Amino acid sequence: MTKINVEKCAKILKDKDNILILMHAHPDGDTLGCGFALCSALLKLGKKAKAVCADVIPSKYGYLFEGVEMPDFKEEYIVSVDVAAEKLLGDFEKVYGGRIDLCIDHHATNSGYAEYLLLNADAAAAAETVLKVIKALGVKIDKHIADCLFTGISTDTGCFRYASATSNTYRAAAELIDYGAENGMINRAMFETKTWSYAALERLALEGMEFYGDDRICLIAVTRDMYEKTGTQEQDTEAIPPLTRQIEGVEIGLTLREKEDGTCKCSIRTYESVDASKLAAFFNGGGHKQAAACELDCNIDEAKRRLVEKSLEMI
Amino acid sequence: MTKINVEKCAKILKDKDNILILMHAHPDGDTLGCGFALCSALLKLGKKAKAVCADVIPSKYGYLFEGVEMPDFKEEYIVSVDVAAEKLLGDFEKVYGGRIDLCIDHHATNSGYAEYLLLNADAAAAAETVLKVIKALGVKIDKHIADCLFTGISTDTGCFRYASATSNTYRAAAELIDYGAENGMINRAMFETKTWSYAALERLALEGMEFYGDDRICLIAVTRDMYEKTGTQEQDTEAIPPLTRQIEGVEIGLTLREKEDGTCKCSIRTYESVDASKLAAFFNGGGHKQAAACELDCNIDEAKRRLVEKSLEMI
Repeated sequence: MTKINVEKCAKILKDKDNILILMHAHPDGDTLGCGFALCSALLKLGKKAKAVCADVIPSKYGYLFEGVEMPDFKEEYIVSVDVAAEKLLGDFEKVYGGRIDLCIDHHATNSGYAEYLLLNADAAAAAETVLKVIKALGVKIDKHIADCLFTGISTDTGCFRYASATSNTYRAAAELIDYGAENGMINRAMFETKTWSYAALERLALEGMEFYGDDRICLIAVTRDMYEKTGTQEQDTEAIPPLTRQIEGVEIGLTLREKEDGTCKCSIRTYESVDASKLAAFFNGGGHKQAAACELDCNIDEAKRRLVEKSLEMI
Repeated sequence: MTKINVEKCAKILKDKDNILILMHAHPDGDTLGCGFALCSALLKLGKKAKAVCADVIPSKYGYLFEGVEMPDFKEEYIVSVDVAAEKLLGDFEKVYGGRIDLCIDHHATNSGYAEYLLLNADAAAAAETVLKVIKALGVKIDKHIADCLFTGISTDTGCFRYASATSNTYRAAAELIDYGAENGMINRAMFETKTWSYAALERLALEGMEFYGDDRICLIAVTRDMYEKTGTQEQDTEAIPPLTRQIEGVEIGLTLREKEDGTCKCSIRTYESVDASKLAAFFNGGGHKQAAACELDCNIDEAKRRLVEKSLEMI
């Protein structure tokens, strides 16, 4: 693995064609925004490019790829965006694992799986770096690319809430608005709009909040039963984890999601006092200092027990 | 009333002393941020200055004035910040009405009550303009001033969510972060922290949501009974109005708050399709296109009836 800078990254991409862009599974606004923005930019340079993800892309992100005509081709160069480790590719790990040529990322924990790595761990979103790469490619940033990258920045900072957003993050957002990004529409779609079914799920989640460790740990368990009652699916739960961290005094927020096979995933949210990626790492997961995730090969009650036990050790 | 620009405003302030700064009643982050930032700046210039508000300042805003030593003096010049009309001064209207020398504001509906008006209706927050004034005054912006102004911008844009935030808004935020504003801490305190009592109130509010007009109108009524049950007060309800606008398809969100005398206030939130200030104006209130407020001299059931009736005419 060789670490590279923005200019080198742009130079490599200029020399390649038939470029496949991989986004991580259980996709979020940053991986999708980066993937489709970079794809658009490469298409504008006359190259063949395609951005793909192993999982279904939630419909609210539709505007990120509507109108982008991605050709079919046999990939000659494989790029991943916002993917900290190959296992985060989900079902694509089997297909593309060990074959990734270039990775653009902002996770300090990036495992270094790609031949070339453009990593800016100070960026709040990978989209901040993809913006620089696209500018270095000499591509004129149009409204679509601006919308994609603004989405990446906005979603990865919880709409500019998190301490991870630096003045550079805000300046990148300003620049993208000047390029035509519809910040109001995007933030409304990402953060202000609840479907009726999600609103029902959120209400159940709030009612079922559990507290441990002198109320310093807050846990929400989203069960299959709750999905059924409200007509929601796992992909509708993105806005639940931030709820666990909002009550005064909470230092660790745990969101468990029951999978179809009865095992579960956990999203971890913390504040400065606890490193979420360390807690996740104990269960073979990973992420950032204040937002991380892991999977547990047990039922939800056992997962609760294990996670709370380990969380208590960390506060 | 004479409209003035930033430079003229700074020139006037430089020539004056013993300056009283008025913030609006039921204070929000923008009026408070502007008031205490401007006060700090004038103190730094060696002037006597004081920022005051007719209502109690909610404790979460404590960091805006902690450590600011405001001297006592007989006011010689009166400035208002983020105050669209004199009646919004609350109990201070009687004391200072008709005597205000200078107003710095961003409400297009400003009534022009002051002798001089510095109005930028394109700014998402009055704090954007106060930042310019402080720079024109030649005051070095320290961390405290930066925290104040960042708070104004962040709170008036719903943490950068609203379409009112322009690229200039994001750039002002970036500049303030470079001056030392603790964006993460501020946004956490303003948007990410729910007290236990507020969390209980919010749950009741969500449970009691009412829908009208094919679900295009959402109404939450916060009653005295709900305050009692949850140990909250009116000043704890700031985060309720945005909840009314979050459900898909809702165009008008109404939040009624029952006052001690049994009459009520209403906060109105809308999207592009409806002008909230027009709806508020019908009840002698005012505000912005997508966020406005009014008071009704009747009980909560009658207020619901009147507001819903008028809302139905507007969608």
